[in-house]
Amino acid sequence: MKTGGLSPLFWPVRMKGKVIYILDETRLPQREVYIKSRGYRQSCAAIKDMKTRAVGQVLLVMYTFLLSRMQKVNLAKVAKAINSTRPTLSFKVLTDMVLDWEKRGIPLEKSIPDFLERLKRSRMKQAFQAAGLLKDGDVILTHCNVSGLLPLIAEFARKDAKKISFYVTETRPYLQGSRLTAWELMKAGYPVTVITDNMVAYLLSLGKVTKVIVGADHLAKNGDIANKIGTYQIAVVARYFKIPFYVLCPPPSRLKSGKEIKIEIRPENELKFYRGILLAPREVKAYYPAFDVTPARLITKHIHLEV
Amino acid sequence: MKTGGLSPLFWPVRMKGKVIYILDETRLPQREVYIKSRGYRQSCAAIKDMKTRAVGQVLLVMYTFLLSRMQKVNLAKVAKAINSTRPTLSFKVLTDMVLDWEKRGIPLEKSIPDFLERLKRSRMKQAFQAAGLLKDGDVILTHCNVSGLLPLIAEFARKDAKKISFYVTETRPYLQGSRLTAWELMKAGYPVTVITDNMVAYLLSLGKVTKVIVGADHLAKNGDIANKIGTYQIAVVARYFKIPFYVLCPPPSRLKSGKEIKIEIRPENELKFYRGILLAPREVKAYYPAFDVTPARLITKHIHLEV
Repeated sequence: MKTGGLSPLFWPVRMKGKVIYILDETRLPQREVYIKSRGYRQSCAAIKDMKTRAVGQVLLVMYTFLLSRMQKVNLAKVAKAINSTRPTLSFKVLTDMVLDWEKRGIPLEKSIPDFLERLKRSRMKQAFQAAGLLKDGDVILTHCNVSGLLPLIAEFARKDAKKISFYVTETRPYLQGSRLTAWELMKAGYPVTVITDNMVAYLLSLGKVTKVIVGADHLAKNGDIANKIGTYQIAVVARYFKIPFYVLCPPPSRLKSGKEIKIEIRPENELKFYRGILLAPREVKAYYPAFDVTPARLITKHIHLEV
Repeated sequence: MKTGGLSPLFWPVRMKGKVIYILDETRLPQREVYIKSRGYRQSCAAIKDMKTRAVGQVLLVMYTFLLSRMQKVNLAKVAKAINSTRPTLSFKVLTDMVLDWEKRGIPLEKSIPDFLERLKRSRMKQAFQAAGLLKDGDVILTHCNVSGLLPLIAEFARKDAKKISFYVTETRPYLQGSRLTAWELMKAGYPVTVITDNMVAYLLSLGKVTKVIVGADHLAKNGDIANKIGTYQIAVVARYFKIPFYVLCPPPSRLKSGKEIKIEIRPENELKFYRGILLAPREVKAYYPAFDVTPARLITKHIHLEV
């Protein structure tokens, strides 16, 4: 399971001394810039401003606890601040785990780095499992960004003499698909083509895609997932065209079903403006749910992460 | 069937003396600018550059024949130039009709204005029929822009004491939904909310939409339609959620089915850039089919235009 150069998005947050370095995903692909956090308030602001997402947020949470411990900050206060950043994401499992370690007198200086090491191995294993589902010549459609897992999947497949290529939806309004996924796949040398979010049905009708692989921000106990807005639509369209729909999942949360997942509604200007350019009439109403819930019945296979 | 102020998009091309005035839809909603055509070559360039679309292109073709006749230009040459502008659109029915009038000695100075007058009445009748399908409280989802018909439909409905509101997909990459449809509906005083193209399934899953109404650029004999890329996907999703899907159609072409409709592939930079801002890695491949074909079986009702 050895891999070559990992995507910068596979491990986008690191810690050195008392500083956390966060790859600023909002600046990619034009600039590869790391912003710094020197305390939990800065870390929470970075999460709220979507400077990092998905696995980057998990790393940031864990490093922030480590840093806060070094700074002798009350960890319950840190946990509370983290849990109030974004409604859809289940940081609570993580923050409860760390508070529990503390309560039981387990030294965080060791348990947090151990956890992160297990996470890294588990993610590589998850990519390895996904690669095993592919065959030579597969054309994968993906949405948003799965934090460096797709180049790794393509690399495992390549080592197994399977050539894989990709289509990626640009993923409005933040364009994580074109800015992050297209960038990391191109950088790693895999064929990738960007489409707009509305081209999926047409593309599938042409028989141009053999499998869909997406990530998930939340996995409920019944197999429903929450992921970037637009995932549900792709699942519906994939089912219509009988294309397998695979999901790279995080560990399950405590929620029974997707119906219990609270969907974060973000400010409408994030949809109406792109880098300061107004894309619609100034006064018009817009609606921006950041995630949607894809029911388990539309998912061909969950690829689980075991930490 | 009297209507108040029509949307500027209902009749976006006009002629005065020997000058054709074309509402430049690429500048909306920030600026309401008219560009001029003084001959068929300028008219064809405006079509190629998508300065006007849909009914605007029909008006532009007809006024261009009228102008060319005044300028004593060979009309067969004009027809040929028009037919080579955009592959998916069926200008041939129009150009053949005009050439046939000429051949049979029918004076174009009268037959073209008569045709345009019939077209205007027919479009108003089409909007009136669509309004008849709606009921009080309906929430309509639409895509792209149906050339001023939606505010007219809402107005007919309002006169019939039915309150209608709208969701509109922004319609990447050209954003005709947010720039044109949201603008004209807001201007006419109807509630409208912009969403990105990937939010349709989520929105429908919430029960927020009661009907879908879209336009069509091409109607084949079997009822298949070609319309702005993304229409097919909405039709698939609407069927999944059992939401009626209505299409405001142009007159049928001579093609037997949607399979015979040639889909125009536009330059990838039109997807990768928005107003000069790069939205993806510079060297990445992109794919931009301008239209897709929605099969008749996904269409609840065709609302025909009889000219």
